[in-house]
This record gives sequence, structure tokens and C-alpha cells, in this order.
Amino acid sequence: MRSACFDIERCRVNKVTIGPIPYLVPIPIVLVGADVDGRPNFATVGDCAVLGLRPALVVVSLSAAHHTTRGVLARGAFSINVPTESMLPLVDCFGILSGKDHDKAALLPSVPGELTGAPLAVDCPINLECRVRSVTEVEHRRIFIADVVQTHVDERFVTTEDDKPSVAPLTELHPILYALDNGYYGVGKRIGTGYESGRALAARLAGA
Amino acid sequence: MRSACFDIERCRVNKVTIGPIPYLVPIPIVLVGADVDGRPNFATVGDCAVLGLRPALVVVSLSAAHHTTRGVLARGAFSINVPTESMLPLVDCFGILSGKDHDKAALLPSVPGELTGAPLAVDCPINLECRVRSVTEVEHRRIFIADVVQTHVDERFVTTEDDKPSVAPLTELHPILYALDNGYYGVGKRIGTGYESGRALAARLAGA
Repeated sequence: MRSACFDIERCRVNKVTIGPIPYLVPIPIVLVGADVDGRPNFATVGDCAVLGLRPALVVVSLSAAHHTTRGVLARGAFSINVPTESMLPLVDCFGILSGKDHDKAALLPSVPGELTGAPLAVDCPINLECRVRSVTEVEHRRIFIADVVQTHVDERFVTTEDDKPSVAPLTELHPILYALDNGYYGVGKRIGTGYESGRALAARLAGA
Repeated sequence: MRSACFDIERCRVNKVTIGPIPYLVPIPIVLVGADVDGRPNFATVGDCAVLGLRPALVVVSLSAAHHTTRGVLARGAFSINVPTESMLPLVDCFGILSGKDHDKAALLPSVPGELTGAPLAVDCPINLECRVRSVTEVEHRRIFIADVVQTHVDERFVTTEDDKPSVAPLTELHPILYALDNGYYGVGKRIGTGYESGRALAARLAGA
């Protein structure tokens, strides 16, 4: 094993300090839906994540000035719609245009879910209905921590065994990734399994 | 264009309701670093995201019981270290073992950054130093919204032009993705460019 000292040297030589840039990658690209003045609207968002499974929590960060934000604040609800690669032109377009000036609902058919104010985009294979739990304001940012109250998946991507649903692998869902190099990316190969890929190493350490 | 009515039917037929599962994909896999009782520790985390660029914000959600969480709460700081595919056995192992029982620092060399309490994993090509801004408690979850105060990138993955650093594409960084099918995935091909892939569609709509 390399000595700590050597590593410190190696780091100082090899790392470039680039300033406070949140280069956490990859960024998942989703469409956040809300009812704004009674009309569904969708914003392209990368500032979002799962925060936990039980309870089922997500976070979405929106700019206060965005059209969608007004709907989320008014209704306390939104949807997260996971698009596929084939929707990329529309998804990017929804990041360029504002719902203030364009009727996005005319381009992306949606249906109401169980939760008022969370329109579900039909063409996205996965839709989450989310109820706002808290709002944190940081400058122009409105950060919504929300409970997922219901999830819908295109039946082509679900199999059910013993009443337990399984969702298809990412290699079939084809979600869109993004990074701060301004590039969109697809998903590559499956490379491992949770709590399996490191099991041999963990066993060796536990026995050491 | 399909009628809204047709779409409503189509959705009702084709979507399966699977209960409140936060199936937001893909999930980025990172190592969250903290000093716990004066010793660096790292946890494998997927519950994390960029929340904004200016200010540079991130979020990390940790279980209150995790060893790393104690360090983050005590110091108000943590690091986000983006691993590469080749580190998968170690990354998965760090999700199996707890720092309470095992000295993870002995397996992953790190150096201190500018911020006390945010150890930087040398082998990860990207390291963010993060200062906690707020903590939101949801049951056993501790959700940390944090400012990124400094970012370090392996010099092999940075080019600088006119004093502006550019980070290499994801196809070179090889970050690890995860999904709730319990699979790890690699990054695929670059499929588009932000504010370009949808520009033709946006121009058509703006002119309509």
C-alpha cells in the first residue's frame, strides 16, 4: 500500500483547484410538472435527487423566477417525470423556453394523478407524484423537499412477482444524464450489483 | 397531434401504479467524507445532488445512525468525492461496512482540504469541499444543504483556456450510476448538448 505521505504529495501535484463548482456527476435530467394557474407546465431540471427510500423522499431545486415554481408554491405539489433519450429535443427545448410564453402542455400530453397539482407526463415512462414537505430558500433558489405519494411506471417496464413490482434496468429505460460540460449522455452498461460488487472485499476486511 | 382524450386513455391503460417509490433515475454514486473523532471516514451515498450553480449548492441525505453523519453534524462540513468505475468494489464495500467497525481511511488515502472536516479522497478524480448551510430532519434522515467552497479535479481531467477550467466529459471520468433495481451502471455515449439539442424545436415554437 502506498504511504500516506506519498499520497499527499501525489494529490498536491496532480489536483487542480477550480473554485467552488458543484461538479457532482452525473446529473439526472427530469421534467418537473406543476399546475400553474390551472394549466399543466413542465420544467427541465437537473437539480434533483432521491433523499431516501423509507420515507420516500425527493428534493427539487428551482429558481424562484421560473414559471413552474409559482405552481409548486401555490399547490404544494409537483410531479417528477423521467424522460427517455428519444425525448431529448423536447426535454432540451423545455429548458430553453418558459411556460410564461409558451404552452408546454400542448407539446407534452399529461393526465392528473391522485395529487392535485402534479400533472403526469404520459410519454415519460416513470412519473412520481410529490407533496411538498418543506421549502428552503437560498438566494433565488427554492429547494423543495417532498414526499413521494405515488409512482407510475409504463407497463412495458414493470414486471410483477409475488405482488412485488420490479422496474426494468436503466439500459431499457434510457434516462438522460447531464454534466457541467453542458453535455447530455446516455446510460452505458450494467457494471455491478449493490451489496455484491464489494462483498468479497468486505468479507476480507471483516476477517482481517 | 394526438388528442388529450386519447392520451388520457392511453395512460390509464399503460401505466402501472407501484406505490410511493422514489424512482428518480439515474442516481449518482459518491463517497461522502467527514472527520469523525479526528479520523477521516467515507460513506457511499446516492442520496445527493447539485442544487444550483450560483450559489454553488449541493444536498446530501444521510441516516442519523451512520458513522459519517456524526462527523458532519460535529464539524458542519463534508466532502463529496466522485469515484470512477474502477473503484466499484471499494465503493460498494464502503456501503456494506461501517466506519464504526472498520478504518476506511486505511483503504482510501485522503488529504485535508481548505475546510476543516472535509477529507479529500486522493483516488477520486473530483473532490468537493462543502460547508453545511442547513440541516432538515425527516424521521431518521438528516438532509444537509451545503455550499461548495472549493473543488479539486485530477489534472488529467482538466484543460484551461483563458483562465477558464473545463472538466473532461463523463465518457472519460467514468462516474458510477445506480438505480433502485440495485444495479450499478456506467455512462454511455454523449447524446447531445445543453441549449442546442432542442434549439431547432424551440425556434419553430417561438416562430409559431
